[in-house]
Amino acid sequence: MSIERVAIVGLGLIGGSIGLAVQDMLPDVATTGWDADADVRRRAAERGLVGTVCETIAEAVGEADLVILCVPVGAMGYAAEAIAPHLRPGTVVSDVGSSKRSVGEALTAALPEAVVIPAHPVAGTEKSGPDAGFAELFRHRWCIVTPGADAPQAAVDTLSAFWEGIGAKVEIMDADHHDVVLAVTSHIPHLIAYTIVGTASDLEDVTRGEVIKYSAGGFRDFTRIAASNPTMWRDVFLTNRDAVLEVLGRFTEDLSLLQRAIRNGDGDTLYDLFERTRTIRRSIIEEGQDDARPDFGRKDH
Amino acid sequence: MSIERVAIVGLGLIGGSIGLAVQDMLPDVATTGWDADADVRRRAAERGLVGTVCETIAEAVGEADLVILCVPVGAMGYAAEAIAPHLRPGTVVSDVGSSKRSVGEALTAALPEAVVIPAHPVAGTEKSGPDAGFAELFRHRWCIVTPGADAPQAAVDTLSAFWEGIGAKVEIMDADHHDVVLAVTSHIPHLIAYTIVGTASDLEDVTRGEVIKYSAGGFRDFTRIAASNPTMWRDVFLTNRDAVLEVLGRFTEDLSLLQRAIRNGDGDTLYDLFERTRTIRRSIIEEGQDDARPDFGRKDH
Repeated sequence: MSIERVAIVGLGLIGGSIGLAVQDMLPDVATTGWDADADVRRRAAERGLVGTVCETIAEAVGEADLVILCVPVGAMGYAAEAIAPHLRPGTVVSDVGSSKRSVGEALTAALPEAVVIPAHPVAGTEKSGPDAGFAELFRHRWCIVTPGADAPQAAVDTLSAFWEGIGAKVEIMDADHHDVVLAVTSHIPHLIAYTIVGTASDLEDVTRGEVIKYSAGGFRDFTRIAASNPTMWRDVFLTNRDAVLEVLGRFTEDLSLLQRAIRNGDGDTLYDLFERTRTIRRSIIEEGQDDARPDFGRKDH
Repeated sequence: MSIERVAIVGLGLIGGSIGLAVQDMLPDVATTGWDADADVRRRAAERGLVGTVCETIAEAVGEADLVILCVPVGAMGYAAEAIAPHLRPGTVVSDVGSSKRSVGEALTAALPEAVVIPAHPVAGTEKSGPDAGFAELFRHRWCIVTPGADAPQAAVDTLSAFWEGIGAKVEIMDADHHDVVLAVTSHIPHLIAYTIVGTASDLEDVTRGEVIKYSAGGFRDFTRIAASNPTMWRDVFLTNRDAVLEVLGRFTEDLSLLQRAIRNGDGDTLYDLFERTRTIRRSIIEEGQDDARPDFGRKDH
């Protein structure tokens, strides 16, 4: 089983990057694409995000072996309903959503005739929209594939080979476990970043100008994450609620302990944690998951 | 009043960067330095962090017009006591600590004969020690100077000109206000980052290997901050306790509201915040306080 035609529904950062990556690294695979927003379709055509930007979703997916839904997770069910009447039997339908149990359920319900194999490339930037994508986005990044129990192995292998073909490393994982892991490594960090940026802008004693001027002390890192696509992130929190609330509970417990240590002048508790967290950074650098240069190699600006 | 000889006590990231910057940008100013750690002194001499690495603190500060204490804020009082017997009358003593009220009090108490003018360059990386410094660290960054009510204007001007001479922009601020502003823009972001990295490494359901592998989803940004010098940060939280606890209280209130919104499926509350926080990022980029490239311009790795 091999893929000759891939259709991309949703031509923002992730969809656009997949289209560019396929044209760059898998030139024998034809790409079609569609987006619900006519302005995005026009811009996608200008940038050549896919080989053919179609005017209807039917046209985009009708001949595809693989359809990848690249829409916010709250829109996955609607996108699946929209493509359902136009698919050839046996078409593989996948997605790129950040929560997987809810998306898997939505796709399976809407697409009884298709081969549904959810997936999540752990890659992105704070930018969004049709101008944000680039072909190298997935290179050396993990793509987590979460097939249901009934998924045919050949289709899982085909989807995995596709992602490897555009530079990613693939891991197969249970959808529920994915949702807990990503709550830790992605969803809670985003929630915290959004919160502190909001807190900072609401303080009476500190002006917004001061927050911006002195942001190099650490805050600016959080603002990058808190500039991510609001629709996408709203949907992530609503669809991965249980895992997010569970990990958030742990985080607030740990934060309370540090709060108490600060109040009591307990320097040892603070030092022990601050020393321990350094080793995680070291491992992330060693495993090639981040830029080793100080400050991410930021430019003097 | 001009500076001919500057002495740097503590030759880590900040002290070393000052030494390199002075040699690079203010070549007529002589630099001496000392560090309590003999290994650091040796490495500082090898890298040429200052013109002369002295074997005693007395020798380092005895001829200086300006002494800058570049030690963790909890050690400022000790460092001030150590230099006190060796200073010429009227020497300007400053520092680089991240909390200013407590440091100002400690320096003033220990150095009744000196002209104490606390300062805080809002610059740094997650690296520390004598190998971490570089001459451009302060370029285009703010240095906040917090003179006491009695500080002579000429000395404030001299210190300000010194920081401008090595590339920084200077702002004069009340020490208490500094401590609140920096609690927001630096201390709480660090505390949160340390906490979530600790939480992630303590979960039973998610292995440390998984946390590291999938860190590109947002978590890795926090690990950079949580790799900062543990002694420095322990001291910051202990010496800026009141402002840190105040801002932390606001943050946890805001986080509770989002937690409830997630539990109740209230997408509008989430979306409104996530949309609002984007504008802060835009202002930070416009004011030249961060790298505008997506993902800080991180390298593919």
